[in-house]
Amino acid sequence: MKLAERVSAALARATEKTGRDLFHEPLVLGVSGGADSLVLLHLLRAVRPAEGLIVAHLDHALRPSSADEAAVVNRIAAGYGLRFHTRRVDVAELAKSLNLSLEEAARMARYDFLAEIARAEGAPAVAVGHHADDQVETILMHVLRGSGLGGLRGMVEAGELPGHPKLRLLRPLLAITRAEIEAYAGEQGLRPITDESNADPAFLRNRVRHELLPALETYNPQIRERLRALSEVVAADEAFLVSQTTTNLTRLIVERGEETLAWSRDGWLALPLALRRRVLRLALAVVASDAPEPGYQALEAARRIAESGETGARVDLPGGLALRVAYDRLRLTRQPGAVSAELPQLPSAGPIPLSVPGAILLKNGWRLSAEFVVGAPDIETNTDRWTAYVAIPPAEALLVRGRRPGDRIRPLGLGGERKVKEVMIDRKVPVEARALWPVVATAERVVWLAGLALDDRARVTLESSRVIRLRCWREEHEAG
Amino acid sequence: MKLAERVSAALARATEKTGRDLFHEPLVLGVSGGADSLVLLHLLRAVRPAEGLIVAHLDHALRPSSADEAAVVNRIAAGYGLRFHTRRVDVAELAKSLNLSLEEAARMARYDFLAEIARAEGAPAVAVGHHADDQVETILMHVLRGSGLGGLRGMVEAGELPGHPKLRLLRPLLAITRAEIEAYAGEQGLRPITDESNADPAFLRNRVRHELLPALETYNPQIRERLRALSEVVAADEAFLVSQTTTNLTRLIVERGEETLAWSRDGWLALPLALRRRVLRLALAVVASDAPEPGYQALEAARRIAESGETGARVDLPGGLALRVAYDRLRLTRQPGAVSAELPQLPSAGPIPLSVPGAILLKNGWRLSAEFVVGAPDIETNTDRWTAYVAIPPAEALLVRGRRPGDRIRPLGLGGERKVKEVMIDRKVPVEARALWPVVATAERVVWLAGLALDDRARVTLESSRVIRLRCWREEHEAG
Repeated sequence: MKLAERVSAALARATEKTGRDLFHEPLVLGVSGGADSLVLLHLLRAVRPAEGLIVAHLDHALRPSSADEAAVVNRIAAGYGLRFHTRRVDVAELAKSLNLSLEEAARMARYDFLAEIARAEGAPAVAVGHHADDQVETILMHVLRGSGLGGLRGMVEAGELPGHPKLRLLRPLLAITRAEIEAYAGEQGLRPITDESNADPAFLRNRVRHELLPALETYNPQIRERLRALSEVVAADEAFLVSQTTTNLTRLIVERGEETLAWSRDGWLALPLALRRRVLRLALAVVASDAPEPGYQALEAARRIAESGETGARVDLPGGLALRVAYDRLRLTRQPGAVSAELPQLPSAGPIPLSVPGAILLKNGWRLSAEFVVGAPDIETNTDRWTAYVAIPPAEALLVRGRRPGDRIRPLGLGGERKVKEVMIDRKVPVEARALWPVVATAERVVWLAGLALDDRARVTLESSRVIRLRCWREEHEAG
Repeated sequence: MKLAERVSAALARATEKTGRDLFHEPLVLGVSGGADSLVLLHLLRAVRPAEGLIVAHLDHALRPSSADEAAVVNRIAAGYGLRFHTRRVDVAELAKSLNLSLEEAARMARYDFLAEIARAEGAPAVAVGHHADDQVETILMHVLRGSGLGGLRGMVEAGELPGHPKLRLLRPLLAITRAEIEAYAGEQGLRPITDESNADPAFLRNRVRHELLPALETYNPQIRERLRALSEVVAADEAFLVSQTTTNLTRLIVERGEETLAWSRDGWLALPLALRRRVLRLALAVVASDAPEPGYQALEAARRIAESGETGARVDLPGGLALRVAYDRLRLTRQPGAVSAELPQLPSAGPIPLSVPGAILLKNGWRLSAEFVVGAPDIETNTDRWTAYVAIPPAEALLVRGRRPGDRIRPLGLGGERKVKEVMIDRKVPVEARALWPVVATAERVVWLAGLALDDRARVTLESSRVIRLRCWREEHEAG
């Protein structure tokens, strides 16, 4: 039971780190049916009571056999006497509609689904089967993409569930190799489903697994162990550097506004180079968390101006940010910035009532209208992102406003809730266009992010008696 | 003159960092005759007065054409009116005798030669043509070998010359790519020597250059820029972490002896994980700088014992080191340790006179003898490392003693001086056997490290009138 002991130790570490009793509280397991997740399920049953374990399986609808796979996992869960949830999400469609890679869309759909089940079951955490070889692949992918030190850290054993900060994501197998997992599956007579997509070289991860890692092993047969050791060292180094950065920026701040942050220049200049870089990067993130991360060269240029520029010197950064050198401080400001007339923008962020039928005027000749649909609407074949059909109870009035902190939406087709901010980032809305982007909402919730996403709860069904067509468009001749 | 400006800026940075005026003081350039070093030479002539520039070329004796190459570089230097030095070292032989790879031996021979010329010319620094693509290759080689964060940093633009801490090593082309260098060579009509060994896949660097990097570029065409950016970030992060580590260990030390270091356990436990690891590693280096670096697993095991072990707990580390947990402190001690009877060991480190002829008794049946050689000695064909022929002026008495701090030797065939400690490390003498390893010396200098290296100045030449044979051997029947 060597692996069981290691999984038990991982659960103990996660319990200590999260402050939640992961041996007894409900725990949702993402089970694809592959060797990794079946072994994780088998091991968790060995180290904690089975009653709180909940099996969740997302059918990605990528292969004809995927519905059968869901049935297989269902049988396994039933055989163990465990609760089981499944959902089918067309990941290919999701990827297309959100302009994401298949891998990104699949991960998002999986995590959103697991989060929904965890909330429904009252579980503080979800667990997935990522193992040591996945970790090595992840680190290499980060290196290939050109990440900084944070990327070399790889995945963490117990952290936040991406997009769902109140839930924890556990990876109890992270220190266990693929070979150990497969040996265990064999010993225990588990019968994993083979995922043919694991051989598809269209996925970066598969190329790293089947081509790059074997090539690297011809240079150093121990390369996997070495990269894992490197990632553990880096994880701790990075955590220390992050805490030093936060402490120092907090100490040096002299002025903080809605879209402004200023800190002591002398204090900053006295920091070592590593912290000057990191404090600057953190300041950028504080002022504009949704701005694109500046590249290395842009950040270095800003640092040099900040170090040697005279009072009044200024450097522009992505996302409409500007860094200015003052006598005793460095000030980072977000510029209102000019938004292209090609994008819809509200005249102001405050709510404007939208009557049905009715329309409101936006900037640059854009309009947003609402009308009742008479007869059978052409919903199924609507391919215009700027037109949406919604069903809203008569008691709920519509309004149009800018996004608000914490705004969430349940995008159609996706299981879970997402932050409006994240959807805007995913859909590549320029940072300077986000604040005044038209959001159609009721007093209760977001209905439509014009051109971006429709809320699942406003979807028109066969039962809907009152269908509204929302449209957002630009009258070209009015533009100016 | 874009490249010249960048080299000038690099020289200015190095001047600031080293405190030496590298625009006017003598500067020794290692010039192989390849594009890199010819371009460096050309650029340095453009950014500083030529009179202090000294060209040095080491003939590695690896190819029949190498003597011609030295002549080519000589002509180039003469054409520029620069001083020129060359030396032929049989690097293949050196690699064999020191048990090093060809690359390691070549680097050592080169740096020792450059150091010797720099000392002779009164130059504070030497410059070499390493460029941005060399840097990327170096970083990848470090990753492949499994280095920690320090290895990701790669080479530094201005640092210490390895093995010669009083001299600086400059790499003014480190931020300039191979393509830029080759373009410049073409524009300026320079005619570099082609080094065929650059295509030999027996060298790790060539495999990295010709196979691995092109493969990585199929994943990310920007991989070189990204790795260079990573190395610059890591260099600063690492420098900060090193300074934090030194500060904290210094603050926490409560006891320091010849072979012992103890530091406050509570203070250490209060450090973040990154610094607990790094302080422990630094303490090991302080107590035994010549001990082999412990691997990641060994260090982690020691850390865990140090964190959670009870008073009296102990963990052994490589190099005869032991870490012990006491109530309020952690104590690292170097054990005298048992040395194998297969290795020669003095009865004590103090000097013992060695008369000629004469012999002294070592431990475990080993003996060390000296005798005059009558007739023509068989020096040329001597292949026994335990026998050495030396020429010592009659006025100088021989003695046998343990190594002393700062002991240096000029190993036969190598241009420069090396620390006796380093030679012992290179020749894999176990750390616990080094203190009592027999060193034959005069009052002035080291003559022979028994079985390891002979000093160049004691070499027998045609002019030597008084030849002494030194032998070190074990009388098997006396062992006990």
